[in-house]
Amino acid sequence: MIAGIELGGTKTVVGLGDGRGRVLEQVRFPTTSPRDTMACAWTWLRDRFGKSGPAVLGVASFGPIQLDRQALDFGVYLTTPKPGWQGFSLEESLREAFPECRMVLETDVNAALLAELRYGAAKGMRDVVYLTIGTGIGAGISVNGQLVHGTLHPEMGHLRVPRHENDTFAGSCPYHRDCWEGLASGVAMEQRWGVAAKDLPPDHPAWEMEAWYLAQGILAAIAILSPQRVILGGGVPQATGLVAATSRHLDQLGNGYFDAPGNRLCLPALAQDAGLIGAIELAVAG
Amino acid sequence: MIAGIELGGTKTVVGLGDGRGRVLEQVRFPTTSPRDTMACAWTWLRDRFGKSGPAVLGVASFGPIQLDRQALDFGVYLTTPKPGWQGFSLEESLREAFPECRMVLETDVNAALLAELRYGAAKGMRDVVYLTIGTGIGAGISVNGQLVHGTLHPEMGHLRVPRHENDTFAGSCPYHRDCWEGLASGVAMEQRWGVAAKDLPPDHPAWEMEAWYLAQGILAAIAILSPQRVILGGGVPQATGLVAATSRHLDQLGNGYFDAPGNRLCLPALAQDAGLIGAIELAVAG
Repeated sequence: MIAGIELGGTKTVVGLGDGRGRVLEQVRFPTTSPRDTMACAWTWLRDRFGKSGPAVLGVASFGPIQLDRQALDFGVYLTTPKPGWQGFSLEESLREAFPECRMVLETDVNAALLAELRYGAAKGMRDVVYLTIGTGIGAGISVNGQLVHGTLHPEMGHLRVPRHENDTFAGSCPYHRDCWEGLASGVAMEQRWGVAAKDLPPDHPAWEMEAWYLAQGILAAIAILSPQRVILGGGVPQATGLVAATSRHLDQLGNGYFDAPGNRLCLPALAQDAGLIGAIELAVAG
Repeated sequence: MIAGIELGGTKTVVGLGDGRGRVLEQVRFPTTSPRDTMACAWTWLRDRFGKSGPAVLGVASFGPIQLDRQALDFGVYLTTPKPGWQGFSLEESLREAFPECRMVLETDVNAALLAELRYGAAKGMRDVVYLTIGTGIGAGISVNGQLVHGTLHPEMGHLRVPRHENDTFAGSCPYHRDCWEGLASGVAMEQRWGVAAKDLPPDHPAWEMEAWYLAQGILAAIAILSPQRVILGGGVPQATGLVAATSRHLDQLGNGYFDAPGNRLCLPALAQDAGLIGAIELAVAG
């Protein structure tokens, strides 16, 4: 019985797994203040592991958060606009609840990627990009079979892409206006068209433009990393035909220079549970 | 005494090193046909190691070339416009010259990066991007201390970037016109301004535009990999003030979201010899 937590921007999932890709039990609740959110999580774990808690806990969290175990601020949330979370130390909160428990911490996107690498759409692969395209755009990345962190962790949503010739929308990113996320996230779609992405009909021109924009950013990942697979997670790619349209644009963009870039795209295999399964995998390894 | 070869698009360097970053002896000659070029290299090595040649040989080559030792076409040049090289097997040529010699093969940019990681501008670092900005734009990449290959190897020059508002140049890339390389390589500069980059005066507006374009592509690498250092190799970044101007544009682009991206830029420390030193390092490890 292995414990994991997925701390998402809007909801938190705490659960137990068998360490072979199966979730045995889980609970979901909204992510509110750090104090209340973590109190819920610690209580749920205390009910199952007793007052000393689990020996190891895998945590897949939204970011930015300090992942470097050597850093003085390991487990601390960095510049986030999420009320109350900036400066909050997950490591200290855990230490107060379960002093003996060891936390293995990753970004939510890297954890979801880890789950897909072990049990999902990228089983057995080593060089894979996992994108989440929803409210924002984030990326989990594996290179040579290892998760990528760099100096902090990738913030792939904020690279720059060319503009679509028919697009006059200024962009939705509060930092950069028209970076990739500012032009291609779910929030950008909603602001551009005045309708939530999930409510845009399949024949709306929004989708062709979205596929075009997705291809621009994905091409950067392919040019830089040459991954075997690019998994399109998050809500937006669930739209009918979007993955196929993005593949077409990607092949056109590559113009034969890259080896069939469009064929590398796929949807996640584990859907909703990837974050929690990944968190549990972290605890297995850690 | 360890042997290495740097096979460049225009010149080839064969040399011996001590495996601690020093080159003991080297010879340079133009890269012509594969047969003539390799004959020169094998003769030079035969003169020093006798007729069985060295036991191990590090090779840093231009690409695209198959690097995967498991592949049937290991050491074969792939779709290259370089006359005579497409389909040529470096591995077979070596096997005919020195049947017992083991080749450790890398891209020229990854080898240069390896040298900079061991002895140069990125000593002790693990997450580093080495760009060459010359005739084209290429990238060597290290993640978690390991060189990146992916399905083949990165072709970072061919990602897409926004256009500078004052730029009407169509782009120089034969595949993509206005990809990053098509807008920011030395060839692009020469075609846009009608003067070779090295002959453009320091106060020419070309340099401000070049810095702007370099920042766009470098931002993609920082957003995707969060590297500690981005080394600007090749001829173009040697221009006075270009690295500093690129740093400024990068900080403006990041707008405080990334941690001081401009500070991560630097010139190579090993200059001309990086490729050969890297090739020799490959042989030490292999």
